[in-house]
Amino acid sequence: RINGDRLWDSLMEMARIGPGVAGGNNRQTLTDADKEGRELFAQWCEQAGLTLGVDEMGTMFARREGTEPDLEPVYVGSHLDTQPTGGKYDGVLGVLGGLELVRTLNDLSIQTRRPIVVVNWTNEEGTRFAPAMLASGVFAGVHELDWAYDRKDAAGKSFGAELERIGWKGEEKVGSRPIHAFFELHIEQGPILEAEEKDIGVVTHGQGLWWLEVTLTGKDAHTGSTPMDMRVNAGLGMARITEAVHQIAMAHQPNAVGAVGQANVYPNSRNVIPGKAVFTIDFRSPELEKLTSMRSQLEEQAQRIADELGLGISIEPTGHFDPVTFDADCVAAVRNAAERLGYSHRDIVSGAGHDACWINRVAPTAMVMCPCVDGLSHNEAEEITREWASAGAEVLVHAVVETAEI
Amino acid sequence: RINGDRLWDSLMEMARIGPGVAGGNNRQTLTDADKEGRELFAQWCEQAGLTLGVDEMGTMFARREGTEPDLEPVYVGSHLDTQPTGGKYDGVLGVLGGLELVRTLNDLSIQTRRPIVVVNWTNEEGTRFAPAMLASGVFAGVHELDWAYDRKDAAGKSFGAELERIGWKGEEKVGSRPIHAFFELHIEQGPILEAEEKDIGVVTHGQGLWWLEVTLTGKDAHTGSTPMDMRVNAGLGMARITEAVHQIAMAHQPNAVGAVGQANVYPNSRNVIPGKAVFTIDFRSPELEKLTSMRSQLEEQAQRIADELGLGISIEPTGHFDPVTFDADCVAAVRNAAERLGYSHRDIVSGAGHDACWINRVAPTAMVMCPCVDGLSHNEAEEITREWASAGAEVLVHAVVETAEI
Ligand SMILES: NC(=O)NCCC(=O)O
Ligand SMILES: NC(=O)NCCC(=O)O
Repeated sequence: RINGDRLWDSLMEMARIGPGVAGGNNRQTLTDADKEGRELFAQWCEQAGLTLGVDEMGTMFARREGTEPDLEPVYVGSHLDTQPTGGKYDGVLGVLGGLELVRTLNDLSIQTRRPIVVVNWTNEEGTRFAPAMLASGVFAGVHELDWAYDRKDAAGKSFGAELERIGWKGEEKVGSRPIHAFFELHIEQGPILEAEEKDIGVVTHGQGLWWLEVTLTGKDAHTGSTPMDMRVNAGLGMARITEAVHQIAMAHQPNAVGAVGQANVYPNSRNVIPGKAVFTIDFRSPELEKLTSMRSQLEEQAQRIADELGLGISIEPTGHFDPVTFDADCVAAVRNAAERLGYSHRDIVSGAGHDACWINRVAPTAMVMCPCVDGLSHNEAEEITREWASAGAEVLVHAVVETAEI
Repeated sequence: RINGDRLWDSLMEMARIGPGVAGGNNRQTLTDADKEGRELFAQWCEQAGLTLGVDEMGTMFARREGTEPDLEPVYVGSHLDTQPTGGKYDGVLGVLGGLELVRTLNDLSIQTRRPIVVVNWTNEEGTRFAPAMLASGVFAGVHELDWAYDRKDAAGKSFGAELERIGWKGEEKVGSRPIHAFFELHIEQGPILEAEEKDIGVVTHGQGLWWLEVTLTGKDAHTGSTPMDMRVNAGLGMARITEAVHQIAMAHQPNAVGAVGQANVYPNSRNVIPGKAVFTIDFRSPELEKLTSMRSQLEEQAQRIADELGLGISIEPTGHFDPVTFDADCVAAVRNAAERLGYSHRDIVSGAGHDACWINRVAPTAMVMCPCVDGLSHNEAEEITREWASAGAEVLVHAVVETAEI
């Protein structure tokens, strides 16, 4: 049994760093708040007797030695970065759940044959620097390191420069670590477990995703004195494509979602017809054909909308992964742990992307999910109960210890 | 005859202050650049022997004495503030055209019976602080001074505090000046004069306007893991209302325009369904019934759109004026001047709002317009020719001198 109060207290202590405006967090990746969060985690790792490694992407690996140090370690973890208006649990629970795991093993003087490594992957959220799951993507060989360093935030700052600035660019080559298995505990971020009153989601699959960034180019002009038929209104184009994204997702029901998350017009002045619009599209589905079909329908419709309005258009993919099938043995370890511990559970598809989705390409991987209130996430009001957190962490401990072998 | 080169050189010199990024200007009201522009104008006024007064709204009044100082003066002018990505002529031509007028009278040692006052009205553009034509509106008794001081920019700074900060809050009570007549020279900001190859627009009327600011309240949520039927997407509501604005304006053709100029979603993150959207609507028409009808149709449709999506909605009017009919005698003075000078001309309705629209409520007022290339304004690429500027200024001089009496 883990110490649920200790886990909860650590969650609350981490949440004091990078506070939001409405009870949640703004601890975006590679900000000063992220740096502070990393320092606190590093200090906790040291107190738990772990040895810290940091790779060139800033990912933190805190190792508890096994009785057979040469065996490939079992990894657990998630991410400490948050959305600009994010919750206290998204990602954090997985990292601090991993920490609670080693604290519990320490308390009980349990030794595992395999080393256990608790990970904090850099830039999971992808808001400041797209794409999401950037460091785990480089680790899994999906992205090049230099390409990742070149990612820019809205202010034009690069990932590489910001990583150096906060002092967390390590020396270790990315992806050089052998991994026996990876387990990620995460809140569901959707409504299913709570609605069905299940303690635990056994994640068998993950949705695939396409992120697109659209730039429309029209002509800034006076809202009053420009006749309707002379307008080249990029804001109107953005509105029509936003509706198209929604209609395309609706036409692919069930098992498909789509929305525009970022939306910006320029010069963004009350009496100027927008001459430029830049916005992002997020399409997801667990079915590859639907995912592909949504993207291609959107590209076709967006081009038509732009042509009708006389707008220039460019559509750039900024993130992509195919639907994921997690490792059968790791999934079974999670399901068995839930069963053994007497928690109600169900198999579930992850609606969100996770570092586990990339790591699954290079090592056997699975995820444990716990419910969250109203399925709400990426919102400062994100909430879970102490019991849900404890149940998730306990299933994590049992699955990991079984895999790491006593 | 005026000195067209001198006028042009002054326009270019002013344009060096608050340069834009693409050849135009960003000299928004009450910024450091605005302060610098005011200083240059004040220096030019002093060199021309004018006496400067500044009222509590920061409006600058530069007076050339008449031979009968007790007669009500004739006013000329416009504004030196610009859009964030504005042109070099919108407003500036009217102020510097007024300056060229007194420089010309000085050169020719012409004395008028009535004093002539060249004005730079504060915050005409209304982008940083809505509504537009703020200082002339207070002057005309349309707005209260304290209400004007309380207007806030996007960063929450107030008009009053910013006016004090740049050091241009005068002592003179606003609206205390008697005005015999007011003439404003301005670029058309629309395509008619250029298309019809007219040198001069004799402005008989101005369009009326409604500015609305809409706030939609939904629920931030994860774009991946939130099922379509659980979304309360404020960005989708903004898209639908943007389309409604366009359709309503199209349904009121001819003589009506409508667009969304500012559009913002929150938290503006790629993987968050927008929980809030704030955007501005600009409807105009020279016909009062159309103006009223567009606003009420929009309010009805926006409410329905919000209800369908489960969004909270508030619609706040942030600017309004009814269609304007300029003073018949002043209009005739402009028309006669154009005729006398041999310029081609036509009567025209102003598509944009102008300080003249407010001053017309408290003093006989008219406007002179000159063409602009492609009808383009509120764009850094705004352009006019030296000849157009000279013709406009010459008509201004003749209309004003006739009215100020030699
Ligand atoms: N779990 C999570 O919210 N990850 C961020 C990437 C995504 O949008 O799915
Ligand atoms: N002339 C001009 O652009 N004025 C700004 C107010 C308006 O939008 O009409």
